[in-house]
Amino acid sequence: MAEIVTRIADADATSITVRGKDLVGELIGRRSFTEMFYFLLVKRFPTDGEARLLDACFVTLMEHGFTPSALIARLVMESMPSQPQAAIAAGLLSVGDVHAGTMDGCGAILHAGVASGEEPAAYCRRVVAEHRAARKPVPGFGHPFHKPDDPRTPKLLELAEKESLKGDYLRLLRQLAAEVDAVAGKHITLNATGAMAAILLEIGIPPAMLRSIAVTARCGGLVGHLVEEQDTKSARYIAELARANIPYKGD
Amino acid sequence: MAEIVTRIADADATSITVRGKDLVGELIGRRSFTEMFYFLLVKRFPTDGEARLLDACFVTLMEHGFTPSALIARLVMESMPSQPQAAIAAGLLSVGDVHAGTMDGCGAILHAGVASGEEPAAYCRRVVAEHRAARKPVPGFGHPFHKPDDPRTPKLLELAEKESLKGDYLRLLRQLAAEVDAVAGKHITLNATGAMAAILLEIGIPPAMLRSIAVTARCGGLVGHLVEEQDTKSARYIAELARANIPYKGD
Amino acid sequence: MAEIVTRIADADATSITVRGKDLVGELIGRRSFTEMFYFLLVKRFPTDGEARLLDACFVTLMEHGFTPSALIARLVMESMPSQPQAAIAAGLLSVGDVHAGTMDGCGAILHAGVASGEEPAAYCRRVVAEHRAARKPVPGFGHPFHKPDDPRTPKLLELAEKESLKGDYLRLLRQLAAEVDAVAGKHITLNATGAMAAILLEIGIPPAMLRSIAVTARCGGLVGHLVEEQDTKSARYIAELARANIPYKGD
Amino acid sequence: MAEIVTRIADADATSITVRGKDLVGELIGRRSFTEMFYFLLVKRFPTDGEARLLDACFVTLMEHGFTPSALIARLVMESMPSQPQAAIAAGLLSVGDVHAGTMDGCGAILHAGVASGEEPAAYCRRVVAEHRAARKPVPGFGHPFHKPDDPRTPKLLELAEKESLKGDYLRLLRQLAAEVDAVAGKHITLNATGAMAAILLEIGIPPAMLRSIAVTARCGGLVGHLVEEQDTKSARYIAELARANIPYKGD
Repeated sequence: MAEIVTRIADADATSITVRGKDLVGELIGRRSFTEMFYFLLVKRFPTDGEARLLDACFVTLMEHGFTPSALIARLVMESMPSQPQAAIAAGLLSVGDVHAGTMDGCGAILHAGVASGEEPAAYCRRVVAEHRAARKPVPGFGHPFHKPDDPRTPKLLELAEKESLKGDYLRLLRQLAAEVDAVAGKHITLNATGAMAAILLEIGIPPAMLRSIAVTARCGGLVGHLVEEQDTKSARYIAELARANIPYKGD
Repeated sequence: MAEIVTRIADADATSITVRGKDLVGELIGRRSFTEMFYFLLVKRFPTDGEARLLDACFVTLMEHGFTPSALIARLVMESMPSQPQAAIAAGLLSVGDVHAGTMDGCGAILHAGVASGEEPAAYCRRVVAEHRAARKPVPGFGHPFHKPDDPRTPKLLELAEKESLKGDYLRLLRQLAAEVDAVAGKHITLNATGAMAAILLEIGIPPAMLRSIAVTARCGGLVGHLVEEQDTKSARYIAELARANIPYKGD
Repeated sequence: MAEIVTRIADADATSITVRGKDLVGELIGRRSFTEMFYFLLVKRFPTDGEARLLDACFVTLMEHGFTPSALIARLVMESMPSQPQAAIAAGLLSVGDVHAGTMDGCGAILHAGVASGEEPAAYCRRVVAEHRAARKPVPGFGHPFHKPDDPRTPKLLELAEKESLKGDYLRLLRQLAAEVDAVAGKHITLNATGAMAAILLEIGIPPAMLRSIAVTARCGGLVGHLVEEQDTKSARYIAELARANIPYKGD
Repeated sequence: MAEIVTRIADADATSITVRGKDLVGELIGRRSFTEMFYFLLVKRFPTDGEARLLDACFVTLMEHGFTPSALIARLVMESMPSQPQAAIAAGLLSVGDVHAGTMDGCGAILHAGVASGEEPAAYCRRVVAEHRAARKPVPGFGHPFHKPDDPRTPKLLELAEKESLKGDYLRLLRQLAAEVDAVAGKHITLNATGAMAAILLEIGIPPAMLRSIAVTARCGGLVGHLVEEQDTKSARYIAELARANIPYKGD
């Protein structure tokens, strides 16, 4: 087997090195969580604009009320109150194909489109037609109650416009949105996951790791639910609600 | 049962509210991950100094090489490559009593000491004596290879000194360190978890949630290991190392 | 470091060995799940009576309706439908200090009592008095709705009486129950976790591993919830119930 | 929304009902773990032969030495020794697409083939040709070190032959094995996951739940690793092995 190495971290008695930087001399006190996250993921530091946009995506994703992840974290917290990391871990398991998948799915479409070099309008026509034929929504479009527009989307796109980005993914997203509307014959919501997919690709996040931004954001957000759970004891009430509203029926 | 409410988040067709703030108008593009994390946890925004110290703690904790959490995340990534959130969740389960416990333990000592109003020197003498009697190290002290000093500790304390903090927890920590050395008859390393326990209490993190800072930091750090795992396929090698070095022995 | 070995399993091109037995020749087709579980845990095969009692405990613990573990498993299943192991793993995290803890706690009392050799009546008086002083229920006693008696308890104790057991733990449990009633001045339910703690200790399960019987039983039981979730889509409904019944309240 | 019901369990003060059976009167002491598992999953009790085959599959899958699941469970146990359910949960996350996927994949082929009613030889030719074209192994075939034959496979097939089964899935598996060999021009190992996929379908396990048999078996098996970990402290050694053998390399 070829030698396997790591390029992440090293330590000796007097120093800790992270991707070639001295942790104490170059990172602690000089870099934010967001910059360090980007550095570990992309292997270079973000520009100020890239860091601002990554923060905007983090802030957008951190908190959404009683999502499955929050419910799960509260239920585990009630069961194992001394181990908040277990409640967080369980909650993060639900940031999966369904709840973070539209960002992944929209990102994959945008990434493939830019990588292919195909003429954007033609590419978008083909993608929308394929989804229509499969009777599937185009990922990044539609929202259960933010209609006609997701309030987060224009804000995120406006922030992106202020930064000097190459812009390929954002342009393709706008083209895709126009095509989605044209084929539907009406305006379909471009939701926040679609906008974030384009923005995160613009700032260099690898397509296979888009979901990790949602996971990390939600990790931070779940901490707020654990704090509230300590006060309100909602977990027992949620279990009672389920029992009271989902009756047993014999065969 | 008394009515249970949530004070975290609300949404309607055109807006999302998080702890009374409008997500689009007041948070996205205006606040960083670190400020938002603090806001969700402490229920007010941090001062700039508090945010700087929280970032310093996050950066200190994000990456430590092949910790159990990194090994676990890599092993799960190899088993379920399409679901990075599962790899992260599994890795976070190990940020528990042993690996994040010294921060919790040191924080509990500092919190109880300040809350009690006991004379600091007397309190520290009692705490150190109790640990000595139980043959347990005082949490926050000692390190397997950062000797005589943990390089992160002076950096963290230096950063804390630059900010205007009340200082009770930091003073008690210094007193505790002096007492640990006096009783041991030699210098014992004040490690980074001890320094961070004091700093996080200074900036208002609830004692029961100190661990959540380690969990969130590590969540971000694990993403870097998943990216590397995609390239190096270390998980199979780690399993082979275990099999080759832990032989089977019949009874 | 001393050499570390494993006594669990070995394999070569033509055979697999588990704790000294040939998997193909001695285990597959000859042993049940329950016997193999006992063998891996206790390092010898159970007698027929021990296997019957372990099965009785497994069956008792497998299914309890909409427990936190079932709710969590359903919520994760909805989020990541292709990965049932993630739903099961998340659900099992809630089989923790609160929901499996009474079996652990009662088992610890019974184990310490028998190990100490203290006169049983005196031991039980002391234990019950200590719990009363701390205003804590004695683990294994009391039940939210199975009153005055948990219907599972007499059945489990009756099954235990049919087998030839040493009986120390069961006798101590009866003594403890008498003392609990005497001190309370009324009959307190001896619940199923109390009975199972005594039975599992009688058949040689290590006290620190009592919880693993609950975890394994619940693992099997959660599979039934995943099958039902595929049909009923209860997870979205549970999340809606929580949102509808736990209103947002601004500060 | 249509009313959602559960058909799994109900309880009142004096009784517990599981899928229409009285837990105390009809299940505890009368049914084994394996029968109860089948009952919860398939919604009827197994015949004796079905239970024997399910036990044979469980026993085959419970223990495989230092698999990723065992390594992960040991690493989490070291980090959170008081919570064995967390160690088990983390380990089970690795029973995923890679390590349980071949049983799922082979089961999907067998299920689709029988459901389609296509002529078996033609179906197998098509399936093998498609995998060859995609340069993918046919799931259920090949093994890294059990060559030329997996010792578990003939044993499992021999046990299946003793029972009165319809036999469609087993016949299709034999046809598939013949075609795999014919196309390869040499004998390819039919591994245990292939044999178990056919057997579990024969006894009525739903194709989407084949993996749950591996998950439940491994849950039981991991308990043995936790017991050994308490004695040997292998987790720290495994982490040291990784650090010593995967050196840091700066960019």
